[in-house]
Amino acid sequence: MIIDGREVAYKIKEEIKNEISLLSNKLTLCVVQVGDDEASNIYIKQKEKLANELGINFIHKKYNDISEELLEEEIIKLNENKYITGIIIQLPIPDKYNTNKLINLIDPNKDVDGLTDYNKVKLYNNEEGIIPCTPLGILELLNHYNIDVKGKNIVIIGRSLLVSKPLFNLLLNKDATVTMCHSKTVDLPLITKNADILISATGKPHLVTEDMIKDNAVIIDVGISRIDGKLCGDVDFENVSKKASYITPVPGGVGPMTVIMLMKNILNAYKKQKN
Amino acid sequence: MIIDGREVAYKIKEEIKNEISLLSNKLTLCVVQVGDDEASNIYIKQKEKLANELGINFIHKKYNDISEELLEEEIIKLNENKYITGIIIQLPIPDKYNTNKLINLIDPNKDVDGLTDYNKVKLYNNEEGIIPCTPLGILELLNHYNIDVKGKNIVIIGRSLLVSKPLFNLLLNKDATVTMCHSKTVDLPLITKNADILISATGKPHLVTEDMIKDNAVIIDVGISRIDGKLCGDVDFENVSKKASYITPVPGGVGPMTVIMLMKNILNAYKKQKN
Repeated sequence: MIIDGREVAYKIKEEIKNEISLLSNKLTLCVVQVGDDEASNIYIKQKEKLANELGINFIHKKYNDISEELLEEEIIKLNENKYITGIIIQLPIPDKYNTNKLINLIDPNKDVDGLTDYNKVKLYNNEEGIIPCTPLGILELLNHYNIDVKGKNIVIIGRSLLVSKPLFNLLLNKDATVTMCHSKTVDLPLITKNADILISATGKPHLVTEDMIKDNAVIIDVGISRIDGKLCGDVDFENVSKKASYITPVPGGVGPMTVIMLMKNILNAYKKQKN
Repeated sequence: MIIDGREVAYKIKEEIKNEISLLSNKLTLCVVQVGDDEASNIYIKQKEKLANELGINFIHKKYNDISEELLEEEIIKLNENKYITGIIIQLPIPDKYNTNKLINLIDPNKDVDGLTDYNKVKLYNNEEGIIPCTPLGILELLNHYNIDVKGKNIVIIGRSLLVSKPLFNLLLNKDATVTMCHSKTVDLPLITKNADILISATGKPHLVTEDMIKDNAVIIDVGISRIDGKLCGDVDFENVSKKASYITPVPGGVGPMTVIMLMKNILNAYKKQKN
């Protein structure tokens, strides 16, 4: 069974739209971009489009060049501006800036990407905070298809700070047994064959093959690469899909969930700020 | 082969003693205790004894009752006192205090237990910080016996914030493939049988039995319980030791490493403060 990320994202979008329409205040997302990264331009356009459809104000602050001091001041001003609900620093930003420092300047209650140390530790400690969009989107997908994670053997391939590590903590908090594999793992199939749910987030096309998975495993593909201009994930979809019980396609699986979860985080940030 | 934690701890103690004797300044550890927890009293005595042996000044501030505000002020004063190298809040402290807030008041460079959010995130991000004593002690034990963790399948049983979670991040940073199991894990032996190194940190006596481990696995027992007044770990030592290549006993395995690693953290904290 193919997990339809677009359909789930659409349903959640309608729910959020409905909830937003009942609010007395407008929500506002501010995306801070430095430089002109091509992929960033595309992602920002996607966020803008969805924000518009949901009636969320969208502010795009794009700097070709700005001193680090002025950038810091800008973020502090956005924190203090009560009309701004959520702040994103679109990554990557050029090397000359201290990315870590800049991100941690964001007010944790406006940190709708969930990337500040404050929110990282909240998830680590199993306390309430803002959770990064992709891990949250994966959990929502599983929930939607009634795939319980409690007690399941879940294997994550990849150990990135943006996706895999928060995902590990999120799933552990939900009582899954979780294994983290990566490029230094010696016998990957030995581990992945025990996985009830296998999540790959490496960006290596066709890393996950049919012989590596258990019968009826659930396969979540977070990878995005291009081969001859065509989008593909980490999973050899054609063959793995025959053996899996559920599988996400690329595109149309995890991708659409990430951006809708950002909108959900903005709504949650609004509620936190009201309290 | 039995891993002799006492011997390794003794060697490290001599190294630290030697290094401390060459310093122009004295190191000072301050332990803040609130209440009169019996186990805490014992642990503090162990720390005091070892500090004395190493020529580290030891200050024990014991409060039977103190307002939270005064306790906060006390910690801030210790942060500012340049003669204090390391600060510990001996846990547990009574429920009426906000433990998390108090711990996070400690200057991260004096946080020799590695329990502040600052140091948690450092370990999570694979950046340099102060690492909690028990995980650090386990890594030192493995190093001492030339047991490389890179690429190994390591299974941790337990998911505590004090031991298992920092251990997970520490081992992942050293390129191990790591699985975290816990009380909600459905088929524990299925997972543990793949472990090259199995680390149990639950406090459940005889949880780990012979049939759960792989031939020649390395077994690290972090559990401490008492049965009929006698100390024991999580592992059925008598039977598991016949199948394992290396195993830590309880007592005399991980325990002695924890307190010596505290002394090492004090020395490292001193170096950080000097820079």
